[in-house]
Amino acid sequence: MSKGRYILLAVVCGAVAFALGVIIGWFSRSGLTAEDRAALNKYLASIEDADETIRDHILETIDAQRIRENLRQLSQKPHMAGTPPDLEMAELLRRNWLENGLDEVRLVPYDVLLSYPPLGREGPNNTAVTVDGADPAREYEDTRTLHIEPEYQDDPDAVQFFNAYSPAGHPVGELVFANYGRLEDFDYLRAVGINCTGKIVLMKYRSGGRGQKAKNAASAGAIGAILYPEPADTNEPGGKVYPDGWNLPGTGTERGGALLETGDPLTPGYPATDYAYRLPKDKSNVFPPIPLQPIAYNDAQKYLSHLDGDIAPAGWNGSLPITYRLGPGFTGDWAGRKVALHVYTNTTIRRVYNVVGMIKGEVEPDRYVMLGNHYDSWVQGAIDDTSSTAISLELTRVFGGLVKDGTWRPRRSIVFVAWGAEEYGLLGSHEYVEQFTGLIKDRVVAYLNMDIGVGGNYTIFAGCSPSMIDVIYDTTKQVPDPDASLGKSVYETWSERDPADADADVKVPKLDWPRVGTDYIPFGLRVGTPLFTFAYVHDQTNYSPRAIYPSYHTAYDNMDLMERFVDPDFTVHRAMARISGELIRRLADSLVLPYDCRKYGPSLGAFLQATEQDFGSMLYDQGIGIDALRSAVYNYTAAAEGFHDRLQAIDRKDPLQIRSLNDQMVQVNTAFIDIHQPHYSNKHVLYSPSGCATNSSAAFPGIVRTMCDGPVDDEGWEEVKKEVAAIASTIQSAADVISDVDSILGPS
Amino acid sequence: MSKGRYILLAVVCGAVAFALGVIIGWFSRSGLTAEDRAALNKYLASIEDADETIRDHILETIDAQRIRENLRQLSQKPHMAGTPPDLEMAELLRRNWLENGLDEVRLVPYDVLLSYPPLGREGPNNTAVTVDGADPAREYEDTRTLHIEPEYQDDPDAVQFFNAYSPAGHPVGELVFANYGRLEDFDYLRAVGINCTGKIVLMKYRSGGRGQKAKNAASAGAIGAILYPEPADTNEPGGKVYPDGWNLPGTGTERGGALLETGDPLTPGYPATDYAYRLPKDKSNVFPPIPLQPIAYNDAQKYLSHLDGDIAPAGWNGSLPITYRLGPGFTGDWAGRKVALHVYTNTTIRRVYNVVGMIKGEVEPDRYVMLGNHYDSWVQGAIDDTSSTAISLELTRVFGGLVKDGTWRPRRSIVFVAWGAEEYGLLGSHEYVEQFTGLIKDRVVAYLNMDIGVGGNYTIFAGCSPSMIDVIYDTTKQVPDPDASLGKSVYETWSERDPADADADVKVPKLDWPRVGTDYIPFGLRVGTPLFTFAYVHDQTNYSPRAIYPSYHTAYDNMDLMERFVDPDFTVHRAMARISGELIRRLADSLVLPYDCRKYGPSLGAFLQATEQDFGSMLYDQGIGIDALRSAVYNYTAAAEGFHDRLQAIDRKDPLQIRSLNDQMVQVNTAFIDIHQPHYSNKHVLYSPSGCATNSSAAFPGIVRTMCDGPVDDEGWEEVKKEVAAIASTIQSAADVISDVDSILGPS
Repeated sequence: MSKGRYILLAVVCGAVAFALGVIIGWFSRSGLTAEDRAALNKYLASIEDADETIRDHILETIDAQRIRENLRQLSQKPHMAGTPPDLEMAELLRRNWLENGLDEVRLVPYDVLLSYPPLGREGPNNTAVTVDGADPAREYEDTRTLHIEPEYQDDPDAVQFFNAYSPAGHPVGELVFANYGRLEDFDYLRAVGINCTGKIVLMKYRSGGRGQKAKNAASAGAIGAILYPEPADTNEPGGKVYPDGWNLPGTGTERGGALLETGDPLTPGYPATDYAYRLPKDKSNVFPPIPLQPIAYNDAQKYLSHLDGDIAPAGWNGSLPITYRLGPGFTGDWAGRKVALHVYTNTTIRRVYNVVGMIKGEVEPDRYVMLGNHYDSWVQGAIDDTSSTAISLELTRVFGGLVKDGTWRPRRSIVFVAWGAEEYGLLGSHEYVEQFTGLIKDRVVAYLNMDIGVGGNYTIFAGCSPSMIDVIYDTTKQVPDPDASLGKSVYETWSERDPADADADVKVPKLDWPRVGTDYIPFGLRVGTPLFTFAYVHDQTNYSPRAIYPSYHTAYDNMDLMERFVDPDFTVHRAMARISGELIRRLADSLVLPYDCRKYGPSLGAFLQATEQDFGSMLYDQGIGIDALRSAVYNYTAAAEGFHDRLQAIDRKDPLQIRSLNDQMVQVNTAFIDIHQPHYSNKHVLYSPSGCATNSSAAFPGIVRTMCDGPVDDEGWEEVKKEVAAIASTIQSAADVISDVDSILGPS
Repeated sequence: MSKGRYILLAVVCGAVAFALGVIIGWFSRSGLTAEDRAALNKYLASIEDADETIRDHILETIDAQRIRENLRQLSQKPHMAGTPPDLEMAELLRRNWLENGLDEVRLVPYDVLLSYPPLGREGPNNTAVTVDGADPAREYEDTRTLHIEPEYQDDPDAVQFFNAYSPAGHPVGELVFANYGRLEDFDYLRAVGINCTGKIVLMKYRSGGRGQKAKNAASAGAIGAILYPEPADTNEPGGKVYPDGWNLPGTGTERGGALLETGDPLTPGYPATDYAYRLPKDKSNVFPPIPLQPIAYNDAQKYLSHLDGDIAPAGWNGSLPITYRLGPGFTGDWAGRKVALHVYTNTTIRRVYNVVGMIKGEVEPDRYVMLGNHYDSWVQGAIDDTSSTAISLELTRVFGGLVKDGTWRPRRSIVFVAWGAEEYGLLGSHEYVEQFTGLIKDRVVAYLNMDIGVGGNYTIFAGCSPSMIDVIYDTTKQVPDPDASLGKSVYETWSERDPADADADVKVPKLDWPRVGTDYIPFGLRVGTPLFTFAYVHDQTNYSPRAIYPSYHTAYDNMDLMERFVDPDFTVHRAMARISGELIRRLADSLVLPYDCRKYGPSLGAFLQATEQDFGSMLYDQGIGIDALRSAVYNYTAAAEGFHDRLQAIDRKDPLQIRSLNDQMVQVNTAFIDIHQPHYSNKHVLYSPSGCATNSSAAFPGIVRTMCDGPVDDEGWEEVKKEVAAIASTIQSAADVISDVDSILGPS
């Protein structure tokens, strides 16, 4: 061979050897087996944090015009709970949610006690001024022609004025004016010598539940009750009435449920399934005891203007152009006349449905983030609550779309709910929570609620569990204000327009535990689920009591009013949808739940302080110490600090540790439930209503309950003593949840 | 260059190229980063199943002689709850558990209402035959000298005979014999014309609680109650009495608590912490209403032999060599004499402690397997329950040793508990469960209980939650029978000696829900924790009612009796320790919990069948259908089958899926709790006692409750109707827990 050939040989040998070496080197390296690789990938997915790019997709995909079209379609017809259009709406939602890409949607039925006036306008409920009430022919000033907002009398499905669950009846009596119908109002009447026995009592809406007003009136001896929406409490000063503005005309009035407790009246504590035990109706004590009827403020003005008796105290006045008097009875032309109530309302068991749909989570499908709003309305309810239904329908499109096209699936499951029969007393949500208490407690990481979703365009009105405050603030910082010209975030305008502390240097938005009557209640008070409920409202700065929008529960709450006066370009709807959507995304997709359980501390501190301030000396006089409460609050605060430190040091590579701390952040909320609390459903030791008619102290409700409405007897003091210990024990058990795992060994 | 040199060059080139190739190949392969490797290792640990070699280590390390020495030390002195030796024992356990290697041990204090006769033997409780009871000098046949087992009168800490919580008092009356003091026994007396009003009633122990007997007697009009241990129910036929055998001598009697409910009487529902609310004693209705005193059977024989009246029915007879008569009053020499009760027993609040210790889990430290037994005893209590304390002390050594030397740490945490004041009415365990209800519900995967750990050497007497049956069977198959000469497993002898069905071809051991009164009760009935309680017992084949060992609650229950008659070589203790130890290991270390929730099916079926059989026609007559129950049971069964299939297909590489299914297997147990059940603590819809005095039907207790003891009024029928629905709803919610995650959407 030539020299060249030898060199070639050497080169070829070298090349072959090199290639061989590369191959051997490659394969001799101890790599992952395919199985290990698959396991590793699964593991890596289990500790993957949220993909933040999805946020922008969600915010950008939400479409104001689609929400507008949703609302137009959904608010076309009156859809009162238990009527055919109500069921049609449920079925439409199910269809659309499925089309939008949800994995599963079901209608969950309950057979609940509803209440209707004669439908089809027969024998309408009304009030009348009468000579003696015995003979209809001798009635004057009958409100019969005004039993429905005049502009809508042609819609046969618009229900006439009524208060649900009022007993039927035809009482006749002299009229007395009782302001808001609170206990203190009746105390005042008593003090000035006005006896309500046998009387019909006229009261303003607001400052208390409808049923409670009737109950207070009955306690004072009244035989019938009339409610009206005082324009001073309802309308924007100087505004025009509908259809020229959004204020309530004098011919409209607020419908509304009048139960004394929430949930199906016949199945307290248990779901109203087809096989549920139902209390005999006469064994239930949640109904208003006397007939109750709402009237328009024009009629109220007529009655009030003819009233006899002393001039009402200044605080009782409204803005009607009359002198407000107390009665009893009429004077002048109307002297001797009485007022007759004609209430034909009756109860009946009907089937209602919740619409419940799910996007199954990828990594933790058994943890749910739930968004709920009710879909029933007294009439068209474009604001209450079809605006929310229209928003959540758009959200199912946006989230469903991500899932359908395979772009994204959240870590946890997302559950959308449209509640039935909320207007009657939270029936759909109550029965659902009663049916699924255990699952909700163990699995729902957040319940988000919208009611009266877009009731105005000024700012947010919201409430939440303390540990959710930060994530809500952060989310609203991500969403631009509906008024793009401001160049601000929702958070910024919210801070300015409804600050927690108007005098603070750096303002933050007002965000306390919610105090409105909507579907979060069974979640919050029976289970303790972390929750958020919110709405966009109009400027209420100068209202007291806090106003609701003028057309509330009337036929004027409709698409026309929404488009002309509330949210013409639907940017408020879009902002609501963006807040809900981004909140859902964060809660469903974050590796570590964005909760801060230290935030219960200030609530506990405030309750403790209010207890000491409002009741400390009474307790002291009875020898009831609150050291146990003080020390439980201290222990909670310390435990929450310790937990927060552990959370900062969390091993983000350990899916079980993450799951465990996440669960603790949820369970610390549910730990404030004391199952021994006497109410069948309100068992939260911080936020249950105290049941006080007069005293609305912000102290621990279990303690307030006994002491609020007058002198306490020995048995009552025993009750208070017991509550102090029960609340302390419950707070301590919340502290135990977020303490180290050895807290089950007791204090060290 | 020569040819050889060229070849050499080619070879060198080839070698260098090869080496280079290997290196490049090695490094070009994408390997794991160090961080990935660490993550992978952590992940692999999280899905690692139990190391089965630990089983053998545990079984072999458990040392019978150490248990013997433990028992000798622990049973040296009487250690009644609330006395100084009781506290010493708690402190000794804490010290030893820590030395043995537990990570943390604490004493958890409660201030509970206890009850004592005068300590130090002053004014001993007794009964006396008296002429008129007015003048002690005229009392005859005083049992005063027999107020403590004679052989032990020199131990000043051995408490005299008493029933805890008997009111103090000195009633005098004619004697009546009332068999077991059940309602039907008093019905019989009434039927044969014996009026118990103003009488002292003598009753046998067994077939009912001590307090309940006194309550039944009081309901019949009696003013005092005496209990005695009938030798026919207590002693082994033909056996010798202690110290020549283990039978009860005629001079001993059973002490015992007489509360009508379990748990601290003054703090129902809440833990008896230092700040707890305590009911005024007169507001509590859990005390026996009349003085109650146990006597030895020698004394009972004397009384019975002088009784006047008719001969007792055959079923009432015992084995005393007399004719059992009913009374009232005495005859012959004793004619006209009465019986006086002198009871000085009084209640007092004292601090008692649970000893709670932990080995922290490696992977899931927030899931606990708990082993508990009480450490208090009426006297020395070598059997009841120091045998269990001695066993658990040995287990802390074995498990603590593994942890101390770094051999092993379980996946989940192990919690050892020694309960205080069980003998008084499960006070320590009740208060603990009340304090930590939430943590127990969410985190305790199993509660294992030993009471009267070694009360015999024949076979196991046990009860458990249905889903634990298999793992208990499997475990006892791993443990050899204490009698090595048989060459059988515990499972085999247990199957033979106490089969579930004696006629079955293939026998399996009897293992139902437990029906004895011990510390599992609050776990089972208030929380629903999966549980197991067990003991080794003597041959009880021919006893009815089921017997307890003869020296129960006497000073004869001591180390000497244990060593000579019960477990001379401590192999029974070792077997108990091995079963507990292996069960703890399996439950704490298995990747997938060894539960089978299908096993609730037969229980549900049996309850349904018994309900139909025992009450079906009564329900039918009232128009109360049980279709809802039937369908709930069907749904549960189907859901459990579905769950089982999912469990078989579990992805053993997915730690979150495993955690989720494990949690469901625990939560399905707790889902049988209905918080609306009326009793403050017994809220399990399957296993709570019905509260019936006479009817012990195995049907659903909530249904039985109202119908058991006589005619039902309209309100009662409403109650029954309500319960049918409540139970159906609760069973359905258990089915929902083990259904797919979309069960929260309601039925599809």
